[in-house]
Amino acid sequence: MEIKILKNILGANDRIAAKNRELLDAHKIFAVNIMASPGAGKTSVVLQTIRALQDGVRIGVIEGDISSSIDAELVAKQDVPVVQINTGGECHLEAVQVQDALNNLPLAEIDLLLIENVGNLVCPAEFTLGEHLKVLIASVPEGDDKPFKYPLMFNTVDALVLNKIDLLPYVKFNVDGFTKTVKNINAKAEIFKVSCTTGEGITTWAKWLNSRMGKPLKKRITST
Amino acid sequence: MEIKILKNILGANDRIAAKNRELLDAHKIFAVNIMASPGAGKTSVVLQTIRALQDGVRIGVIEGDISSSIDAELVAKQDVPVVQINTGGECHLEAVQVQDALNNLPLAEIDLLLIENVGNLVCPAEFTLGEHLKVLIASVPEGDDKPFKYPLMFNTVDALVLNKIDLLPYVKFNVDGFTKTVKNINAKAEIFKVSCTTGEGITTWAKWLNSRMGKPLKKRITST
Repeated sequence: MEIKILKNILGANDRIAAKNRELLDAHKIFAVNIMASPGAGKTSVVLQTIRALQDGVRIGVIEGDISSSIDAELVAKQDVPVVQINTGGECHLEAVQVQDALNNLPLAEIDLLLIENVGNLVCPAEFTLGEHLKVLIASVPEGDDKPFKYPLMFNTVDALVLNKIDLLPYVKFNVDGFTKTVKNINAKAEIFKVSCTTGEGITTWAKWLNSRMGKPLKKRITST
Repeated sequence: MEIKILKNILGANDRIAAKNRELLDAHKIFAVNIMASPGAGKTSVVLQTIRALQDGVRIGVIEGDISSSIDAELVAKQDVPVVQINTGGECHLEAVQVQDALNNLPLAEIDLLLIENVGNLVCPAEFTLGEHLKVLIASVPEGDDKPFKYPLMFNTVDALVLNKIDLLPYVKFNVDGFTKTVKNINAKAEIFKVSCTTGEGITTWAKWLNSRMGKPLKKRITST
Protein backbone atom coordinates (compact mmCIF):
# COMPACT_ATOMS: atom_id res chain seq x y z
CA MET A 1 0.00 0.00 0.00
CA GLU A 2 1.23 3.44 -0.90
CA ILE A 3 2.23 5.63 1.99
CA LYS A 4 1.33 9.26 1.59
CA ILE A 5 3.88 11.66 2.99
CA LEU A 6 2.39 15.04 3.74
CA LYS A 7 4.44 18.13 3.17
CA ASN A 8 5.23 20.42 6.06
CA ILE A 9 4.49 24.12 6.46
CA LEU A 10 7.76 25.14 4.84
CA GLY A 11 6.66 23.06 1.89
CA ALA A 12 3.47 25.10 1.73
CA ASN A 13 5.47 28.32 1.79
CA ASP A 14 7.69 27.04 -1.01
CA ARG A 15 4.67 26.11 -3.15
CA ILE A 16 3.15 29.57 -2.80
CA ALA A 17 6.55 31.17 -3.40
CA ALA A 18 6.77 29.22 -6.68
CA LYS A 19 3.37 30.60 -7.68
CA ASN A 20 4.52 34.11 -6.83
CA ARG A 21 7.56 33.55 -9.01
CA GLU A 22 5.40 32.40 -11.93
CA LEU A 23 3.20 35.47 -11.58
CA LEU A 24 6.23 37.78 -11.39
CA ASP A 25 7.85 36.15 -14.43
CA ALA A 26 4.62 36.34 -16.40
CA HIS A 27 4.69 40.09 -15.81
CA LYS A 28 8.45 40.37 -16.40
CA ILE A 29 8.91 41.72 -12.89
CA PHE A 30 12.26 41.31 -11.13
CA ALA A 31 11.68 40.93 -7.39
CA VAL A 32 14.18 41.61 -4.61
CA ASN A 33 13.79 40.41 -1.01
CA ILE A 34 15.49 43.02 1.22
CA MET A 35 16.39 41.84 4.71
CA ALA A 36 18.20 43.46 7.65
CA SER A 37 18.26 44.16 11.37
CA PRO A 38 15.82 46.76 12.65
CA GLY A 39 17.25 50.15 11.81
CA ALA A 40 19.97 49.07 9.38
CA GLY A 41 18.37 51.26 6.73
CA LYS A 42 16.18 49.02 4.56
CA THR A 43 13.69 51.79 3.81
CA SER A 44 16.48 54.29 3.17
CA VAL A 45 18.07 51.90 0.66
CA VAL A 46 14.65 51.38 -0.96
CA LEU A 47 14.16 55.15 -1.26
CA GLN A 48 17.66 55.73 -2.63
CA THR A 49 17.26 52.87 -5.11
CA ILE A 50 13.98 54.37 -6.31
CA ARG A 51 15.66 57.75 -6.81
CA ALA A 52 18.61 56.20 -8.65
CA LEU A 53 16.57 54.01 -11.03
CA GLN A 54 13.20 55.75 -11.27
CA ASP A 55 13.99 57.41 -14.61
CA GLY A 56 14.37 54.15 -16.50
CA VAL A 57 12.72 51.52 -14.34
CA ARG A 58 9.15 51.31 -13.06
CA ILE A 59 9.38 50.32 -9.41
CA GLY A 60 6.83 48.83 -7.02
CA VAL A 61 7.32 48.23 -3.30
CA ILE A 62 5.99 45.82 -0.68
CA GLU A 63 6.64 46.96 2.88
CA GLY A 64 6.68 44.33 5.62
CA ASP A 65 6.33 45.35 9.25
CA ILE A 66 4.85 43.89 12.38
CA SER A 67 2.75 47.01 12.75
CA SER A 68 2.52 50.60 11.48
CA SER A 69 2.63 51.96 7.92
CA ILE A 70 5.41 54.51 8.43
CA ASP A 71 7.64 53.04 5.74
CA ALA A 72 4.87 52.67 3.15
CA GLU A 73 3.95 56.32 3.67
CA LEU A 74 7.55 57.38 3.03
CA VAL A 75 7.71 55.27 -0.13
CA ALA A 76 4.32 56.47 -1.42
CA LYS A 77 5.68 60.04 -1.42
CA GLN A 78 8.03 58.91 -4.21
CA ASP A 79 4.98 58.32 -6.41
CA VAL A 80 5.56 54.58 -6.49
CA PRO A 81 2.88 51.91 -5.99
CA VAL A 82 3.30 50.40 -2.53
CA VAL A 83 1.49 47.87 -0.37
CA GLN A 84 2.07 47.57 3.37
CA ILE A 85 1.90 44.13 4.95
CA ASN A 86 1.42 44.15 8.70
CA THR A 87 2.35 40.73 10.02
CA GLY A 88 0.63 41.35 13.34
CA GLY A 89 3.42 39.86 15.41
CA GLU A 90 5.15 37.50 12.98
CA CYS A 91 8.87 38.14 12.71
CA HIS A 92 9.20 37.56 8.96
CA LEU A 93 7.28 37.75 5.69
CA GLU A 94 5.86 34.56 4.20
CA ALA A 95 5.04 33.86 0.57
CA VAL A 96 1.29 33.90 1.23
CA GLN A 97 1.48 37.51 2.41
CA VAL A 98 3.43 38.50 -0.69
CA GLN A 99 0.80 36.71 -2.78
CA ASP A 100 -1.86 38.93 -1.23
CA ALA A 101 0.27 42.01 -1.82
CA LEU A 102 0.83 41.07 -5.49
CA ASN A 103 -2.95 40.97 -5.92
CA ASN A 104 -3.01 44.57 -4.78
CA LEU A 105 -0.28 45.99 -7.03
CA PRO A 106 -0.52 47.14 -10.68
CA LEU A 107 1.72 44.34 -11.96
CA ALA A 108 1.58 45.43 -15.60
CA GLU A 109 3.20 48.70 -14.60
CA ILE A 110 6.13 47.35 -12.57
CA ASP A 111 9.61 46.24 -13.73
CA LEU A 112 11.32 46.02 -10.37
CA LEU A 113 9.62 44.97 -7.13
CA LEU A 114 11.42 45.80 -3.89
CA ILE A 115 10.12 43.71 -0.98
CA GLU A 116 11.19 45.06 2.40
CA ASN A 117 11.08 42.25 4.92
CA VAL A 118 10.50 42.56 8.69
CA GLY A 119 13.59 43.84 10.55
CA ASN A 120 15.19 40.61 11.77
CA LEU A 121 18.46 38.81 11.00
CA VAL A 122 17.11 35.35 11.76
CA CYS A 123 13.72 34.12 10.57
CA PRO A 124 13.39 35.95 7.20
CA ALA A 125 16.38 33.94 5.94
CA GLU A 126 14.29 30.77 6.21
CA PHE A 127 11.31 31.83 4.09
CA THR A 128 11.54 32.27 0.34
CA LEU A 129 8.95 34.63 -1.13
CA GLY A 130 9.33 33.95 -4.87
CA GLU A 131 12.01 36.62 -5.26
CA HIS A 132 14.81 36.60 -7.85
CA LEU A 133 17.39 38.14 -5.54
CA LYS A 134 18.00 38.19 -1.79
CA VAL A 135 19.78 41.25 -0.40
CA LEU A 136 21.00 41.90 3.12
CA ILE A 137 21.45 45.44 4.38
CA ALA A 138 24.09 45.51 7.11
CA SER A 139 25.07 48.76 8.78
CA VAL A 140 28.29 50.07 10.22
CA PRO A 141 27.06 50.89 13.77
CA GLU A 142 25.79 47.31 14.20
CA GLY A 143 29.41 46.19 14.34
CA ASP A 144 31.57 43.94 12.20
CA ASP A 145 30.89 40.73 14.16
CA LYS A 146 27.40 40.09 12.79
CA PRO A 147 28.41 37.49 10.15
CA PHE A 148 29.63 35.22 12.96
CA LYS A 149 26.38 35.54 14.84
CA TYR A 150 23.85 35.27 12.01
CA PRO A 151 25.61 32.93 9.56
CA LEU A 152 22.46 31.64 7.83
CA MET A 153 21.39 35.15 6.85
CA PHE A 154 24.84 36.12 5.60
CA ASN A 155 25.11 32.81 3.74
CA THR A 156 21.72 32.99 2.05
CA VAL A 157 21.96 36.33 0.24
CA ASP A 158 23.11 37.25 -3.28
CA ALA A 159 24.25 40.71 -2.29
CA LEU A 160 25.20 42.57 0.84
CA VAL A 161 24.82 46.34 1.10
CA LEU A 162 26.89 47.78 3.94
CA ASN A 163 25.03 50.97 4.82
CA LYS A 164 25.95 54.00 6.98
CA ILE A 165 29.60 54.12 5.90
CA ASP A 166 29.45 57.85 6.76
CA LEU A 167 29.61 56.70 10.41
CA LEU A 168 32.93 54.85 9.98
CA PRO A 169 34.95 57.67 11.58
CA TYR A 170 32.86 57.46 14.77
CA VAL A 171 32.58 53.73 15.49
CA LYS A 172 34.85 50.69 15.60
CA PHE A 173 34.33 48.78 12.39
CA ASN A 174 36.97 46.89 10.40
CA VAL A 175 35.69 47.06 6.81
CA ASP A 176 38.36 44.74 5.39
CA GLY A 177 37.86 42.21 8.18
CA PHE A 178 34.09 42.35 7.71
CA THR A 179 34.36 41.87 3.94
CA LYS A 180 36.74 38.95 4.37
CA THR A 181 34.41 37.29 6.89
CA VAL A 182 31.41 37.69 4.61
CA LYS A 183 33.35 36.24 1.67
CA ASN A 184 34.40 33.26 3.81
CA ILE A 185 30.77 32.54 4.65
CA ASN A 186 29.39 33.37 1.21
CA ALA A 187 31.91 33.63 -1.62
CA LYS A 188 29.27 34.50 -4.21
CA ALA A 189 27.83 37.53 -2.38
CA GLU A 190 28.40 40.87 -4.07
CA ILE A 191 29.31 43.52 -1.51
CA PHE A 192 28.45 47.22 -1.80
CA LYS A 193 29.42 50.02 0.57
CA VAL A 194 26.92 52.87 0.69
CA SER A 195 25.66 55.77 2.74
CA CYS A 196 22.00 56.64 2.29
CA THR A 197 22.73 59.90 4.13
CA THR A 198 25.45 61.16 1.77
CA GLY A 199 24.45 59.09 -1.29
CA GLU A 200 27.93 57.57 -1.55
CA GLY A 201 27.99 54.22 -3.34
CA ILE A 202 24.30 54.29 -4.30
CA THR A 203 24.91 54.62 -8.04
CA THR A 204 27.23 51.60 -8.11
CA TRP A 205 24.70 49.52 -6.19
CA ALA A 206 21.75 50.66 -8.32
CA LYS A 207 23.60 50.02 -11.60
CA TRP A 208 24.49 46.52 -10.48
CA LEU A 209 20.88 45.85 -9.45
CA ASN A 210 19.69 47.15 -12.81
CA SER A 211 22.18 44.89 -14.61
CA ARG A 212 20.90 41.89 -12.64
CA MET A 213 17.37 42.51 -13.91
CA GLY A 214 18.87 41.26 -17.18
CA LYS A 215 15.89 41.52 -19.47
CA PRO A 216 14.42 44.19 -21.70
CA LEU A 217 12.43 46.59 -19.60
CA LYS A 218 8.86 47.34 -20.38
CA LYS A 219 8.43 50.78 -21.87
CA ARG A 220 8.14 53.27 -19.11
CA ILE A 221 4.66 54.69 -18.74
CA THR A 222 5.00 58.44 -18.44
CA SER A 223 2.65 59.89 -15.91
CA THR A 224 -0.27 61.81 -17.41
CA MET B 1 -15.95 11.64 31.35
CA GLU B 2 -13.26 14.13 32.18
CA ILE B 3 -11.61 15.83 29.23
CA LYS B 4 -7.94 16.46 29.63
CA ILE B 5 -6.75 19.71 28.13
CA LEU B 6 -3.06 19.67 27.39
CA LYS B 7 -1.06 22.81 27.83
CA ASN B 8 0.69 24.35 24.85
CA ILE B 9 4.39 24.99 24.34
CA LEU B 10 4.21 28.50 25.74
CA GLY B 11 2.70 26.95 28.86
CA ALA B 12 5.71 24.66 29.06
CA ASN B 13 8.05 27.61 28.74
CA ASP B 14 6.22 29.43 31.51
CA ARG B 15 6.43 26.41 33.81
CA ILE B 16 10.18 26.10 33.32
CA ALA B 17 10.56 29.86 33.73
CA ALA B 18 8.78 29.60 37.08
CA LYS B 19 11.24 26.90 38.15
CA ASN B 20 14.16 29.11 37.06
CA ARG B 21 12.70 31.90 39.15
CA GLU B 22 12.43 29.65 42.21
CA LEU B 23 16.04 28.58 41.79
CA LEU B 24 17.20 32.19 41.35
CA ASP B 25 15.24 33.34 44.41
CA ALA B 26 16.56 30.46 46.50
CA HIS B 27 20.05 31.73 45.69
CA LYS B 28 19.09 35.42 46.11
CA ILE B 29 20.07 36.10 42.52
CA PHE B 30 18.50 39.02 40.67
CA ALA B 31 18.18 38.15 36.97
CA VAL B 32 17.90 40.58 34.08
CA ASN B 33 16.78 39.63 30.57
CA ILE B 34 18.55 41.97 28.14
CA MET B 35 17.01 42.23 24.69
CA ALA B 36 17.81 44.31 21.60
CA SER B 37 18.30 44.40 17.85
CA PRO B 38 21.52 42.90 16.53
CA GLY B 39 24.28 45.42 17.12
CA ALA B 40 22.44 47.76 19.50
CA GLY B 41 25.14 47.12 22.09
CA LYS B 42 23.86 44.42 24.47
CA THR B 43 27.32 43.05 25.14
CA SER B 44 28.78 46.55 25.55
CA VAL B 45 26.08 47.37 28.11
CA VAL B 46 26.80 44.08 29.89
CA LEU B 47 30.53 44.89 29.99
CA GLN B 48 29.95 48.46 31.21
CA THR B 49 27.49 47.25 33.84
CA ILE B 50 30.04 44.74 35.08
CA ARG B 51 32.68 47.47 35.33
CA ALA B 52 30.30 49.82 37.16
CA LEU B 53 29.02 47.30 39.71
CA GLN B 54 31.78 44.73 39.99
CA ASP B 55 33.21 46.21 43.19
CA GLY B 56 30.07 45.58 45.25
CA VAL B 57 28.08 43.03 43.30
CA ARG B 58 29.02 39.54 42.15
CA ILE B 59 27.88 39.22 38.57
CA GLY B 60 27.26 36.21 36.35
CA VAL B 61 26.37 36.27 32.66
CA ILE B 62 24.46 34.06 30.24
CA GLU B 63 25.18 34.87 26.60
CA GLY B 64 22.57 33.87 24.02
CA ASP B 65 23.50 33.69 20.34
CA ILE B 66 22.50 31.62 17.35
CA SER B 67 26.12 30.68 16.91
CA SER B 68 29.64 31.73 17.99
CA SER B 69 31.01 32.47 21.44
CA ILE B 70 32.47 35.91 20.69
CA ASP B 71 30.44 37.68 23.37
CA ALA B 72 31.12 35.08 26.06
CA GLU B 73 34.85 35.39 25.40
CA LEU B 74 34.66 39.18 25.84
CA VAL B 75 32.75 38.80 29.09
CA ALA B 76 35.06 36.08 30.44
CA LYS B 77 37.95 38.55 30.21
CA GLN B 78 36.21 40.54 32.97
CA ASP B 79 36.76 37.61 35.33
CA VAL B 80 33.06 36.90 35.59
CA PRO B 81 31.42 33.45 35.32
CA VAL B 82 29.73 33.16 31.93
CA VAL B 83 27.87 30.50 29.99
CA GLN B 84 27.25 30.74 26.25
CA ILE B 85 24.00 29.35 24.87
CA ASN B 86 24.05 28.70 21.13
CA THR B 87 20.44 28.36 19.99
CA GLY B 88 21.48 26.75 16.70
CA GLY B 89 19.07 28.79 14.61
CA GLU B 90 16.36 29.73 17.11
CA CYS B 91 15.75 33.48 17.18
CA HIS B 92 15.23 33.82 20.95
CA LEU B 93 16.16 32.26 24.27
CA GLU B 94 13.70 29.95 26.00
CA ALA B 95 13.45 29.13 29.68
CA VAL B 96 14.72 25.58 29.17
CA GLN B 97 18.02 26.89 27.77
CA VAL B 98 18.41 29.21 30.74
CA GLN B 99 17.67 26.26 33.03
CA ASP B 100 20.62 24.39 31.46
CA ALA B 101 22.81 27.47 31.80
CA LEU B 102 21.90 27.88 35.49
CA ASN B 103 23.07 24.31 36.07
CA ASN B 104 26.45 25.39 34.75
CA LEU B 105 26.93 28.56 36.81
CA PRO B 106 28.25 28.90 40.39
CA LEU B 107 24.90 30.16 41.72
CA ALA B 108 26.12 30.57 45.31
CA GLU B 109 28.61 33.13 44.07
CA ILE B 110 26.28 35.34 42.01
CA ASP B 111 24.14 38.32 43.09
CA LEU B 112 23.22 39.67 39.68
CA LEU B 113 22.69 37.53 36.58
CA LEU B 114 22.74 39.34 33.24
CA ILE B 115 21.10 37.26 30.49
CA GLU B 116 21.88 38.55 27.02
CA ASN B 117 19.16 37.37 24.65
CA VAL B 118 19.50 36.73 20.89
CA GLY B 119 19.60 39.94 18.85
CA ASN B 120 15.98 40.31 17.74
CA LEU B 121 13.22 42.85 18.50
CA VAL B 122 10.38 40.38 17.96
CA CYS B 123 10.41 36.85 19.35
CA PRO B 124 12.37 37.31 22.62
CA ALA B 125 9.52 39.53 23.88
CA GLU B 126 7.23 36.48 23.88
CA PHE B 127 9.33 34.16 26.03
CA THR B 128 9.80 34.73 29.74
CA LEU B 129 12.94 33.14 31.18
CA GLY B 130 12.30 33.49 34.92
CA GLU B 131 13.94 36.91 35.06
CA HIS B 132 13.10 39.68 37.54
CA LEU B 133 13.59 42.51 35.07
CA LYS B 134 13.31 42.89 31.32
CA VAL B 135 15.53 45.51 29.70
CA LEU B 136 15.59 46.69 26.10
CA ILE B 137 18.73 48.22 24.64
CA ALA B 138 17.80 50.59 21.82
CA SER B 139 20.47 52.50 19.92
CA VAL B 140 20.57 55.90 18.29
CA PRO B 141 21.62 54.81 14.76
CA GLU B 142 18.65 52.41 14.58
CA GLY B 143 16.38 55.44 14.34
CA ASP B 144 13.61 56.83 16.53
CA ASP B 145 10.75 55.00 14.77
CA LYS B 146 11.37 51.57 16.30
CA PRO B 147 8.70 51.81 19.04
CA PHE B 148 6.02 52.06 16.32
CA LYS B 149 7.33 48.99 14.53
CA TYR B 150 8.04 46.69 17.47
CA PRO B 151 5.36 47.70 19.98
CA LEU B 152 5.26 44.40 21.91
CA MET B 153 8.97 44.61 22.73
CA PHE B 154 8.76 48.25 23.79
CA ASN B 155 5.64 47.50 25.82
CA THR B 156 6.99 44.47 27.62
CA VAL B 157 10.13 45.91 29.23
CA ASP B 158 10.75 47.47 32.65
CA ALA B 159 13.59 49.65 31.44
CA LEU B 160 14.90 50.99 28.18
CA VAL B 161 18.56 51.86 27.74
CA LEU B 162 19.12 54.14 24.75
CA ASN B 163 22.71 53.41 23.76
CA LYS B 164 25.18 55.16 21.40
CA ILE B 165 24.11 58.70 22.33
CA ASP B 166 27.63 59.75 21.27
CA LEU B 167 26.36 59.33 17.69
CA LEU B 168 23.52 61.85 18.10
CA PRO B 169 25.44 64.62 16.27
CA TYR B 170 25.80 62.42 13.19
CA VAL B 171 22.37 60.85 12.67
CA LYS B 172 18.75 61.98 12.64
CA PHE B 173 17.24 61.02 15.98
CA ASN B 174 14.67 62.98 17.96
CA VAL B 175 15.39 62.03 21.58
CA ASP B 176 12.36 63.87 23.02
CA GLY B 177 10.03 62.40 20.41
CA PHE B 178 11.45 58.92 21.01
CA THR B 179 11.06 59.23 24.78
CA LYS B 180 7.49 60.46 24.40
CA THR B 181 6.60 57.58 22.07
CA VAL B 182 8.09 55.01 24.44
CA LYS B 183 6.18 56.51 27.38
CA ASN B 184 2.93 56.39 25.36
CA ILE B 185 3.45 52.68 24.71
CA ASN B 186 4.83 51.87 28.14
CA ALA B 187 4.34 54.46 30.87
CA LYS B 188 6.14 52.40 33.53
CA ALA B 189 9.39 51.97 31.56
CA GLU B 190 12.42 53.71 33.04
CA ILE B 191 14.52 55.30 30.31
CA PHE B 192 18.31 55.73 30.43
CA LYS B 193 20.52 57.43 27.88
CA VAL B 194 24.02 56.03 27.69
CA SER B 195 27.10 55.70 25.54
CA CYS B 196 29.15 52.58 26.08
CA THR B 197 31.92 54.24 24.04
CA THR B 198 32.28 57.36 26.23
CA GLY B 199 30.78 55.90 29.43
CA GLU B 200 28.18 58.69 29.63
CA GLY B 201 25.09 57.72 31.61
CA ILE B 202 26.43 54.32 32.67
CA THR B 203 26.69 55.21 36.38
CA THR B 204 23.06 56.38 36.51
CA TRP B 205 21.89 53.20 34.82
CA ALA B 206 24.03 50.94 37.01
CA LYS B 207 22.93 52.65 40.23
CA TRP B 208 19.28 52.25 39.28
CA LEU B 209 19.83 48.58 38.44
CA ASN B 210 21.59 48.08 41.75
CA SER B 211 18.69 49.77 43.58
CA ARG B 212 16.21 47.46 41.84
CA MET B 213 18.03 44.41 43.20
CA GLY B 214 16.50 45.56 46.47
CA LYS B 215 17.85 42.96 48.84
CA PRO B 216 20.92 42.57 51.00
CA LEU B 217 23.77 41.40 48.83
CA LYS B 218 25.69 38.34 49.72
CA LYS B 219 29.11 39.13 51.02
CA ARG B 220 31.45 39.59 48.11
CA ILE B 221 33.97 36.81 47.79
CA THR B 222 37.32 38.39 47.27
CA SER B 223 39.42 36.57 44.76
CA THR B 224 42.31 34.63 46.21
